[in-house]
This record gives sequence, structure tokens and C-alpha cells, in this order.
Amino acid sequence: MSKKFSISDIAKELNCELKGNNNIEISGVGSLDEAKEGFISFLGNKKYEHLVEESIASAFIVPADYTKEPAEGKAFLLSDNVDLSFSMMIMMFAPPAIEYPSEIHSSAVVAETATIGKNVHIGPCAIIDEGVKIGNNSVITAGTYIGVNTVIGEDCLIYQNVTIRERCVVGNRCIIHSGTVIGADGYGFVPGPQGIIKIPQVGNVEIHDDVEIGSNVCVDRARFGKTIIKTGVKIDNLVQVAHNVEIGEFSLLIGQSGVAGSAKIGRGCIIAGRAGVNGHIKVGDGTKVAGTSNLVKGCPPNSIMVGTPAEPQREFMTRLTLPKKVKKMQQQIKDLQKQLNDLSN
Amino acid sequence: MSKKFSISDIAKELNCELKGNNNIEISGVGSLDEAKEGFISFLGNKKYEHLVEESIASAFIVPADYTKEPAEGKAFLLSDNVDLSFSMMIMMFAPPAIEYPSEIHSSAVVAETATIGKNVHIGPCAIIDEGVKIGNNSVITAGTYIGVNTVIGEDCLIYQNVTIRERCVVGNRCIIHSGTVIGADGYGFVPGPQGIIKIPQVGNVEIHDDVEIGSNVCVDRARFGKTIIKTGVKIDNLVQVAHNVEIGEFSLLIGQSGVAGSAKIGRGCIIAGRAGVNGHIKVGDGTKVAGTSNLVKGCPPNSIMVGTPAEPQREFMTRLTLPKKVKKMQQQIKDLQKQLNDLSN
Amino acid sequence: MSKKFSISDIAKELNCELKGNNNIEISGVGSLDEAKEGFISFLGNKKYEHLVEESIASAFIVPADYTKEPAEGKAFLLSDNVDLSFSMMIMMFAPPAIEYPSEIHSSAVVAETATIGKNVHIGPCAIIDEGVKIGNNSVITAGTYIGVNTVIGEDCLIYQNVTIRERCVVGNRCIIHSGTVIGADGYGFVPGPQGIIKIPQVGNVEIHDDVEIGSNVCVDRARFGKTIIKTGVKIDNLVQVAHNVEIGEFSLLIGQSGVAGSAKIGRGCIIAGRAGVNGHIKVGDGTKVAGTSNLVKGCPPNSIMVGTPAEPQREFMTRLTLPKKVKKMQQQIKDLQKQLNDLSN
Repeated sequence: MSKKFSISDIAKELNCELKGNNNIEISGVGSLDEAKEGFISFLGNKKYEHLVEESIASAFIVPADYTKEPAEGKAFLLSDNVDLSFSMMIMMFAPPAIEYPSEIHSSAVVAETATIGKNVHIGPCAIIDEGVKIGNNSVITAGTYIGVNTVIGEDCLIYQNVTIRERCVVGNRCIIHSGTVIGADGYGFVPGPQGIIKIPQVGNVEIHDDVEIGSNVCVDRARFGKTIIKTGVKIDNLVQVAHNVEIGEFSLLIGQSGVAGSAKIGRGCIIAGRAGVNGHIKVGDGTKVAGTSNLVKGCPPNSIMVGTPAEPQREFMTRLTLPKKVKKMQQQIKDLQKQLNDLSN
Repeated sequence: MSKKFSISDIAKELNCELKGNNNIEISGVGSLDEAKEGFISFLGNKKYEHLVEESIASAFIVPADYTKEPAEGKAFLLSDNVDLSFSMMIMMFAPPAIEYPSEIHSSAVVAETATIGKNVHIGPCAIIDEGVKIGNNSVITAGTYIGVNTVIGEDCLIYQNVTIRERCVVGNRCIIHSGTVIGADGYGFVPGPQGIIKIPQVGNVEIHDDVEIGSNVCVDRARFGKTIIKTGVKIDNLVQVAHNVEIGEFSLLIGQSGVAGSAKIGRGCIIAGRAGVNGHIKVGDGTKVAGTSNLVKGCPPNSIMVGTPAEPQREFMTRLTLPKKVKKMQQQIKDLQKQLNDLSN
Repeated sequence: MSKKFSISDIAKELNCELKGNNNIEISGVGSLDEAKEGFISFLGNKKYEHLVEESIASAFIVPADYTKEPAEGKAFLLSDNVDLSFSMMIMMFAPPAIEYPSEIHSSAVVAETATIGKNVHIGPCAIIDEGVKIGNNSVITAGTYIGVNTVIGEDCLIYQNVTIRERCVVGNRCIIHSGTVIGADGYGFVPGPQGIIKIPQVGNVEIHDDVEIGSNVCVDRARFGKTIIKTGVKIDNLVQVAHNVEIGEFSLLIGQSGVAGSAKIGRGCIIAGRAGVNGHIKVGDGTKVAGTSNLVKGCPPNSIMVGTPAEPQREFMTRLTLPKKVKKMQQQIKDLQKQLNDLSN
């Protein structure tokens, strides 16, 4: 990070009002507690306001309605969307992005029947199997496998050592991180006459546009039909999406969460970290399942579900405060007994 | 799915009695709520009976003892094993399975000391290390690594980007899905004079016949001796099996569950999704650990264990209903106090 | 394991006092319940003392202060560190370690701008991208990808199919197991005018010396700045370490645990199996979070936190025993009512 920008240039670039010292040179970005002198930081949440005063950073991106004044010699940039402004800020200081030349590496193995779009990068030891279609401007990096007849849209970025099995569909502008497996067989078995018999998993996975999937995620192919990840869904690392699941538009599945077979998750839901959703249930739009909780029944839109088995937040709080209530009741019972004893004597 | 079959041909193929309209042409398969006109669906669980009436599918596979009649113009196929019949049905409509030609791809790296059986497929960029043995008819796909002296049985299917480390043994007819790691070092450390010292992990992993292991699973090699996955075990995605664990025949480990070091799981157990089993404990045959639960102590055969720490189902239910009980008791205490007050006055 | 050693040679090698029969030939090692005749076993925990008497092993490594005598014809080796001695014992019987020749395999792809140290192994189909530096004596095995400008220290062992993205730093003597992904984008999104906008993740991951990371782990790169894994940290399989996290020296993250974004974990902490740590919190040195628990608030040094949300052990025990207390209170209330009734009549 040896780049430097004047605070007034930054204000222009970010389209933010500048308050305070307009003569600072900014040499880096950092969080409130880690930024150094000459750095710019940001106030994302007003509960950290006191950290602005303690920080040695020289400038701060603050909410547009923030009324305090910057300290002597420091500057505030007033922003309508602090997170977004700070992201732009970070990009100004970021090292150059990795470039993926439009070429098929000589060590890649691309089937003759594959259709490769314009301006596509296929990295070293990547394997593109028979009948695959890859859209324009997409990047398939080193060691990644794309299975028979799978279709990858335009402007996708598939990182290293990803596996996408046969007959899956990935939309446009999708990002899939390393180690992730799309389209492996769903987990389905039936007791048979001589042990356990595998239920064939002959469906596929369909991923719509603008989806991002983290590292070492598993999205299983449907038993029949499709496992569907709709537009704008963002999946964190180590998440399990079982066969025939549907994830609604713009829903978020946070790290290590899991969704069991045939569950339908609505639009704009948040399944927080390490939470689970049982199979064959319907989760209403906008529902939030708290971290580590396990949703065992379907729920209406905009539910907030907590605990295992998950219950509405209010019921969960009742449960959480039981020890206090029980302690109080123990005392009350003692008192009652005493009063009774007094009365009997 | 452009295939079509007459319902009477299907009845013959599935060896099911046909009831109702025997003159339907079936053009696809689907679940009760997703099947279209001309499709065949199935009633796997009688609690979904009402969906049969609502479904627009033209035919339904139903249990042999199902007494209702099909609606006008529709057909029922009576089956002794609905799941199995429906699986056969799916296969009739499935796209052709992926074929793996009996060849070693030119980009694969196979050590001279490896022994490769007849009719084996070794895919692009697969690596077969020194001393490996691969049985007849087995398929090792793209990007998979098989370590020094590891033995793979006959008729195995190892998917893409799998890692199986040195000196492991995989039985016959095993399926291992992408991203899975077999035989990595177990997690073992001891406090030493200058920090933490690694305990060498020199055992291996032994996987018996007919085992299926999902994607991004970890089965660690034993500290010494063996980590053992017995015949017919089925492991779902993202499961952790630590060093020196033993999983009994036909047990099921569902998605994101984990078994800690040296635990012995009996035969026919089910460790449900996101559940955990502590190390060094013995889990009796046929035990079920509920989803998200954590089994901390060993248990006798056929236990049903729920919660964290897991307890028998009955005790868990007692715990679950505490808020209701406490609420009732609060009222009772109030009443008692009132009676007492009345009495004292 | 066809090696054999005399018990007196073993005593010398392990620098342990020999008690009992000094004329035994040892042909293998095993745990107390699995060791065969002629094997040596060990007593790691005195609660298993009875197993020493039941075991058919011929010799036992026991704690130096163990006062019992070996049975007729058997031997004890008295050790100051039983685990360590047993590890040395295992190594004597272990098959030879895998050797990695100092060479770049012909199928590996190494960028011209990469700097490769002395005595380095780069395995088949490994990919070393532009500007990478790999220190002396390090081993990069088959199918592993090292991203642009990443630096790997000396004496590292990176197993198969690992992905380490651009600009990360790995210290000396680190071990990284198969399928692990270091430096993928952190999970960061903000609501934007037209959907969800990705927050660029332009920081990196910095791993200090003597770190070991298990299989299929994810350590995300920082939004900006660094995700830091400090010296001597040991991470088990399937663990999630989110962006901007810091893990203090010698802390242990056990299997399937997860640490959310920007959490700072102190030195010498243990995050047990399947446990979670919320984002943006500070966990004091030496803290232990119990298995399956979820730590939602920061805590002072040496805390022992249990449950979800995690609370101090004592509070957790109070909660755990609620059903018993409630049952007792139900009886007390009945008694009170009876006394009251008697009194009123």
C-alpha cells in the first residue's frame, strides 16, 4: 500500500462532503482500532463512536447525518452509505486485481465438444469435459473441473479446485470459491432386500445470476428435477445445500449453515452461521434463523427463529431466562412455607 | 426428458399392479407438487395423501395396501416399496449416465510401480502415486490423488478432486464424492517442553465394501492402527470422522455431523444432520442421535438421544416443556400467596 | 509392522526406567483394549488403570509416579510424559515416512517469475503462480495451487489439492492438509441501490510459524489488512476462520468449529469441536469454549464458556439441572396447597 491520495481528491472520488482539515494526505485504510496516522477509517455503526475519538487515523468516513466535528487537524467525509464509500476507498488502495489472460492454458484439458465463449480464461490443469458451454468473459481457474454438458454463463469467476458435475447450469456473473462442489449426488438411500440401496440422483443444480458461493461448499444435485439457487443468493464457506433445495432470491446462507433435502427457503432470508434448516419445510420470505439454531418446522414470512428446536425470539427469551425465574420461585416457595408455618403455630 | 412410456409398460417394468386408466402415456416424473400433466408421481408417506388429490400428475405410485381409487382418467401403480419403484421410474426417464472409458488419460500421472486392474478409467490430471493398486472396473476421475501404497477395490467410483493419502484401503463398490479427503493426519498434539508437539499419525483408514462418502468429507488416518468405516456405511457431505473412529455396518452419518477421535459407533446407527459424537465413547447398535444434538456419553443399543448434551428423548421433552411448567407454577405460587393472605386476614 | 525391538532397547531409546520383565520382545503398539500379546501399550489417563490389568499387551508405558507393579512376565516403562514417550514408540514401529524428492514434477506448472528455494518438492499438477516464493526444504504436493505473489516459508508441507490464493504469507514449518482453502474472499456484502453489492476483499491471510491446518478448512482473506493465524496454532478439519479474524499463539480450533469475522481469539485458547465464536468479539487468553457451544460475547482470560449462547460453566450447570429443580418445586407447591387446604378446613 504505497499509494497516496489527498483527502480532497478522495472526497471528490467518493462524492462525499469534506468537513475539517482539507489538506491531509492519506496513505492507507484501516479499521478504527488499527488505522495508523495518515490513514482513513470509517464509522460503520454509531455504537463505535467513541473509537473515532480514540483513533489516531487522520480522516474518517461518517454517516451523512453525523453532527459531530472532526478533531483538530482531522477530517470527516460525510457519506450516504458509509460501507459503500469505504469499499470504494479500499479499492483505491488495493493492490491491482489478479488478471486472467484470455487463453486456454496448455496444461488444461478441454474436450473437443466443449463450446468456449470469447475472452475466456481456462487455467492450468483445469478440465472442461464433453459438451460443456462457457459464456463470454468467464474465468475458470487452475485445477477446476466442469462436468459433461454443464453450462457456465458469462462473466463468471470460478476459483481453483472447484468441481461442478455434469448437466448443471450456472448463470451470469457468478463467483464460486475454491474447493466447492456443485452437483454431487444427493444423499438418498432406501432399505432394500439386501442392505441399503442408493436412490439414483439424476436431477441437476441450477444456479441463477449474480450468485456467490464460498469455499468448500456443497450443493447437491436433485434426486430428479432441480436444486435451485436463485438470483443474488450469497453463500458463505462450508455450507451444505442438500438435494432438491430451493434458495430464494437474495437470501444469505452464512458460514457452516446447512439446509436439508427439499427445503424451500424464501426470498431475502438469512440463515445465520452454523444454523440448520430441516428437510421438506417451507421458510417464509425474509425469515431470519439465528446462528447455531435449528429450524425444524416451516414458518411464515419475516419470522425470527432462535434456538434448537428454533422458536420465535420471544419464546426463546422466555426459555433463556428460566434459571432466574426458577431461582425466584424457589425463594417464593420458601417464603410461602415460612408464612404457612407461622400461621400454623 | 423427452422419453415417453405407456403406463402399462411402466407397470410391467416395475412389476406393479395397475389400477384405473391403463391408457396413459407418461412423459416425465415429479414430486406431488411439481409433477405436470402426463407425469407420474408417488405417495411416499401417507400424510401427503391429500396432495395426490390436488396433484395434476396423471399417474401415481402408491403403497400396495392403498385402498383409494384413482380419480377419473388417472392411474395408480400399487407397489410393495414405493421408494424403490419410484427410483426405478426415475431411472427410466434419466439422461444417460456418464460413461468413463477404460483408459488412462494422457494428462494423468501414474507411477510405474502402481498396479492398475482391467477396465479402469483414470481421468485427466489424476495422480496415482507409487505402489497404488486399483481394482478392476474402478473409475478414478479428474484431479483426484491416490497416495503411496493405497489400495482401491473393484467397481469403485472416485469423483473429481478427491484426495486419498498413503497406505489407505478402500473396499469394493465404494463411491467417494468430490473434494473429500481420506487419510489426512488425525488431530493429535501434546504439550511439550517448547510449545505443542505433533503426535505422529502413522495409522491408516480402512473403508470396507459398499460405502458411499459425500463431498468435502474428512476421514482422518489413525494415530496408529486404523480408522474403520465398515460395510454399507453412507456418509453425507461435510462430515468429520476423526482418527481411530470406527463406524459400524450400515450406519448413516448425515450432513455436517462429526465423530470425534476413537469413538466407536455401532451397526445401523443414524447420526443425524449437524449432530456430534464425543471422542472415546461407545455408541450402541441402532442408536439414533437427533439433528444438531451432541452425544457426550456412550449409550446402549437402540438409544434415541436428543439435545446438547444429548439425553434420552423423554428427558429432552421434559426439558423442552419447562417454560410452560414454570409459567403454570408462577400462577400457582401467586394463588397460594393469595390464599395465604386471605387466610391471614 | 514387522519390526521387533527388545524392551530394554526401547527403554533406552525412550529414556524410561524399566520395571518388571526386561526380557520381552516387542512386536507392535496398540491402545489398551486393542494391543495384542507382544505389543506395548500405554496408560495416558489414570482413570483407565483397570484396563492395564485387563490388557493382554506385554508392556506398558506408565506415568513416572505410577506405584503399581507390572503383572508376572510383563513390563512397565516409567515416563515423565507418557504421551510423548508413546509417540516416540509409535515412530519406532511406523512404516517409513513418505519421501518427497527435491524436484519439480514435469506436470507441475511453475511461473517463470516464481522463486523456488533449495531442496523443494513440487508435485504433479501443482500450480505455482506468478511471483510466488517458496522457502528451502518446503514440499508442495500434487494438485495444489499457490496464488500470485504468495510467500511460503521454509520446511513447510502443503498436502494435495490445497488452494492458497494470491498475496498470502505462510511461515516456516507449517503443515496444511488436503482440500484446505487459504485466502478466499471474506464474506462481505452491503445492500446497494440494485440488490446486494460485494464488498471487495483486498487484504490477505498471514500464517505464522509452526501452524498446522487440517483438511477442508477455510481461512478467508481480510476485507483489508490481514487475517492472522499466529505461531503454533493448530486447526482441525472443516473449520471456518472468517475475514479479519486473529487467532492467538498456540490456540486450538477443534473440528468443525468456526470463528466469525473480525473476532480476536487470544493466546492458548481452545475452541472445542463444533463450537462457534461470533464476529467482532475479543476472547481472552486461555479461554475454553466447550464443544457445540456458541460464544456470543467477548470474555476475560481463562474463561470456561458453555452452551448456546455460551455462559460460564457454573451458570450452564444451573440451567442443565433445571428439570430436576422444577420437578421438586412442583411437589413443594402441591405440598403447600395441601397444607393450606388442611389449614383452611
